[in-house]
Amino acid sequence: MSMIGGKPVLYSYWRSSCSWRVRIAMNLKEIQYNIKPVSLIKAGGEQHSNEYREVNPMEQVPALHIDGITLVESLNIMNYLEETRPQRPLLPHDVVKRAKVREVCEVIASGIQPLQNLVVLIYVGEEKKNEWAQHWINRGFRAIERLLSVCAGKYCVGDEITLADCCLIPQVFNARRFHVDLRPFPIILRIDRELENHPAFRAAHPSNQPDCPPEAVK
Amino acid sequence: MSMIGGKPVLYSYWRSSCSWRVRIAMNLKEIQYNIKPVSLIKAGGEQHSNEYREVNPMEQVPALHIDGITLVESLNIMNYLEETRPQRPLLPHDVVKRAKVREVCEVIASGIQPLQNLVVLIYVGEEKKNEWAQHWINRGFRAIERLLSVCAGKYCVGDEITLADCCLIPQVFNARRFHVDLRPFPIILRIDRELENHPAFRAAHPSNQPDCPPEAVK
Repeated sequence: MSMIGGKPVLYSYWRSSCSWRVRIAMNLKEIQYNIKPVSLIKAGGEQHSNEYREVNPMEQVPALHIDGITLVESLNIMNYLEETRPQRPLLPHDVVKRAKVREVCEVIASGIQPLQNLVVLIYVGEEKKNEWAQHWINRGFRAIERLLSVCAGKYCVGDEITLADCCLIPQVFNARRFHVDLRPFPIILRIDRELENHPAFRAAHPSNQPDCPPEAVK
Repeated sequence: MSMIGGKPVLYSYWRSSCSWRVRIAMNLKEIQYNIKPVSLIKAGGEQHSNEYREVNPMEQVPALHIDGITLVESLNIMNYLEETRPQRPLLPHDVVKRAKVREVCEVIASGIQPLQNLVVLIYVGEEKKNEWAQHWINRGFRAIERLLSVCAGKYCVGDEITLADCCLIPQVFNARRFHVDLRPFPIILRIDRELENHPAFRAAHPSNQPDCPPEAVK
């Protein structure tokens, strides 16, 4: 439950986009960590176990055990890393650019992902789940494409990788999973291509996780 | 569309909990501002107009015009205010306490509110909307009650009002609107009682907004 060999422990699921955001941030900041996989599907979901509820009362991943404390909620974890590990900053120095980064993060973290989350899709039902997920991803991506048309450079905000990119790339993966037509979002697609082979992003990819089932590896 | 008399302009709807969060933060920091009401119900929702989409591509409130720029997403707006208006801080100085504040904010802003948002309830349908909203509010409040059992003092995190309180109080109002039984959440209820008569919270209350319909005023 605590540190393994002194390293931070990330409770993670290979395909969870929220876990993936944190994995990218840890990799960019070159923070060594161990992964403790939490299967969201095995036996109705290990995240609902009494043991894991003590780690994260929201019964979801990620959670990070670091510096003797346990943190939950992905943006919160990334903000904590930013405040305690200033190497390779993931927020710009300029307050307006910081706000632009946070806008993209929050549209994804509050406006898209919660609505196409596994636990919500189970509640929506098998029959309707694809249409439901597509609706909310399209709505959010239309907004993000407009935001990026003003603030994007090589990446989401200017030419440095930020927390916005850590959130965007996993959300693009989810969009493809739900067969969203991405052609109306050329800036999003360009940034996705820009980052797909970046080592920190590659290492965080679902197919490179210890709990990725062999049949899912591309 | 821009500043009225040099003051910041908040695009707000009286009953929107996300607008309400920002109103509380503005009031606590004693920032003078003008409200531009956006009716979420009139003519199918003024937030979907071409004019407003230029303000906020997510077609929702709040948005804040301040310092010559327009900001969207409530937590982002509050973070910008915190970084540019340090008077009456709403984040603790200590990094661990800051993380505890952000955990509560993010559980509400990503884990509860997006799922009981008006636009989602329209999609869910009239018949199922109460049960749906109750389900997600109960789930989130169970988690918040556990988080607060560790970090609460007089308020959500310790004895100073923080961004967590700005998010919690409007969410409690929503819970009541959807007839959630709040008795299992004694810490949440205590903090709500503690803050209900605070001037900054009172002035931000839906019933004290210029666009509150007369029949809704308590």
